[in-house]
Amino acid sequence: MDRRSFLKNTALGGSAAAATSLAAPAYAQGNRTLTMVTTWGRGLAGVFDAAQKAADNINNMADGSLTVEVKGAGELVGAFEVFDAVTAGQADMYHGADYYFVGQHPAYAFFTSVPFGMTAQELANWYYHGNGHALHDELGQIFGLKSFLAGNTGAQAGGWFAKEIKGPEDFNGLKFRMPGLGGKALGKLGASVQNLPGAEVYQALASGAIDGTEWIGPWADEKAGFQEITKFYYTAGFHEPGAGLSIGMNRDVFDSLTPAQQKIVEIACAEAHQWNLAQFLSNNGAALQRLESAGVKTLEFPESVWDAFGQASNEVHQENMGDDIYKKVHDDYMASMKASSGWIQKSEGAYRSQRDRVLG
Amino acid sequence: MDRRSFLKNTALGGSAAAATSLAAPAYAQGNRTLTMVTTWGRGLAGVFDAAQKAADNINNMADGSLTVEVKGAGELVGAFEVFDAVTAGQADMYHGADYYFVGQHPAYAFFTSVPFGMTAQELANWYYHGNGHALHDELGQIFGLKSFLAGNTGAQAGGWFAKEIKGPEDFNGLKFRMPGLGGKALGKLGASVQNLPGAEVYQALASGAIDGTEWIGPWADEKAGFQEITKFYYTAGFHEPGAGLSIGMNRDVFDSLTPAQQKIVEIACAEAHQWNLAQFLSNNGAALQRLESAGVKTLEFPESVWDAFGQASNEVHQENMGDDIYKKVHDDYMASMKASSGWIQKSEGAYRSQRDRVLG
Repeated sequence: MDRRSFLKNTALGGSAAAATSLAAPAYAQGNRTLTMVTTWGRGLAGVFDAAQKAADNINNMADGSLTVEVKGAGELVGAFEVFDAVTAGQADMYHGADYYFVGQHPAYAFFTSVPFGMTAQELANWYYHGNGHALHDELGQIFGLKSFLAGNTGAQAGGWFAKEIKGPEDFNGLKFRMPGLGGKALGKLGASVQNLPGAEVYQALASGAIDGTEWIGPWADEKAGFQEITKFYYTAGFHEPGAGLSIGMNRDVFDSLTPAQQKIVEIACAEAHQWNLAQFLSNNGAALQRLESAGVKTLEFPESVWDAFGQASNEVHQENMGDDIYKKVHDDYMASMKASSGWIQKSEGAYRSQRDRVLG
Repeated sequence: MDRRSFLKNTALGGSAAAATSLAAPAYAQGNRTLTMVTTWGRGLAGVFDAAQKAADNINNMADGSLTVEVKGAGELVGAFEVFDAVTAGQADMYHGADYYFVGQHPAYAFFTSVPFGMTAQELANWYYHGNGHALHDELGQIFGLKSFLAGNTGAQAGGWFAKEIKGPEDFNGLKFRMPGLGGKALGKLGASVQNLPGAEVYQALASGAIDGTEWIGPWADEKAGFQEITKFYYTAGFHEPGAGLSIGMNRDVFDSLTPAQQKIVEIACAEAHQWNLAQFLSNNGAALQRLESAGVKTLEFPESVWDAFGQASNEVHQENMGDDIYKKVHDDYMASMKASSGWIQKSEGAYRSQRDRVLG
């Protein structure tokens, strides 16, 4: 978008120029630059793209009245400092995975993904047509944030391991990177769980500081290069079945926008959610083929491991239920998942099975 | 959005007022009203909502510079006349299901849904990160249209029948409502296929003009009232596994918009696609329960019927392959579906199976 040439060629440009005897030209007065800090290293495949897409959407639609500048992790503040930077007013908004902030409040986990929780579509159902967005906002209000989903990785892979996992006992003592409640569940199986930002995972794996890691899925994982270090790749995981990425905007900043600008931010974020999910899913298939060609062995966890994941996940939820807000979000989330998953299985699920059978 | 009160309270209001000696106030000069005609009766659940949501998005973000007025089927032109109305410049844009326009070009089917084709997510992958949108545009260019996905019903139900379907021979002589290529496939099984707009289906079913119909899914079908007439409901269908709804805008009108307005239209439509899909899927579960409570029997087609659907669908595709554009879109669509469906099955598909098994 070239704002200057647009101004030159419109009556508004003329109007603004003619009105210089007023306090300030209307548009110039209205032009604002907003700083977006992120939990992602600049250029990190998919996740940084989601932040940039949301910003581009805002910039392109606001026609110069808003300009969002995106900062990678470490450029203004560190990856995990973005939440506090925005609540303190040091930056205007962050883009990240809200489960990085379970220390601020455990209920943030639901707005990324929880173990044995919603797929990306179920999350969208809850967020845009159930109580999801309202609850996200209610949580944000505690910290002075206005929150929006603004990206989604889809169902994440089970992750990278140095050796095959044959039973739940193989997690005992394993040094593994997994954030959020999934990581807490893995801890119950005896794993030594670490929560590293994406930009630091490769180094930790290469140095042996961790034995294995989950990250996202074939496309982003391939770009991260984990196949150079480990060769056992579990394609389905229990921990993040459809991980939403979020924008948290300083609420005073959001409230100071015009109604049209607020709507631009809202729709820009929602579109980035869909765009980013499609980005991951349209790239994963080809990436998986490349990984397999490069000697990566793809596997599924045995049922005994899924059973252990299920039990540990339930324990983690139960431990948090003493917190009223956590319980409120949990109960609403689970009710929505139950209500929407059945039909999806009876229609799309049944169709997919028949399509795959008939087409071979 | 209250444009008048906004103007009063901003410097822009003052600027525009002070500049009345110029040809026209800047904003007033730029304000445009666009007419959107639709293939949907006003208020038709889900589908009319998608048209209205896209229009609301544009109106709320454009801050008065664009106002889209939505017309139900029959208010300006009839449901199936919207395409010609927009290409002729009688209306600025339409919202509808593009497979209604296979008479204009058979390749339009791909931008709604084709039998044994993509789920809603696979369609989004192709449209937003493959060649889908570019091909939609290439097709639109023939008719002077700029096209956007702007809604999705999700996987559609197999439909409503007066009696149980036990084999493909039960379609012989059946008077059934089904548009698009699915309808053509059903014709190969001997059905007498009709393509009625949504607002006319109930009456046709009630009068016996048709023996059965597909429409969308439990929520929209319940509102249409088909359960009052027929009691056998097939939950999975072969014909529309993820039906996209589209906006076609007169290309001259689109080209006359500012770059920011064009981006607003684009993002508004894409957001409506996600919002509408989530709307259908968040409402279908509860609606299915109500239908079952009201005595509707839910069923799945036997494998022999799915096999016949598959063969007939393939024949329909083959018949159209002599058209170069159809073949080009078909081949790209099928390649994208093949590339993205495998990973989805290995990750989300495997996860859903384990989740349902573990949670019981």
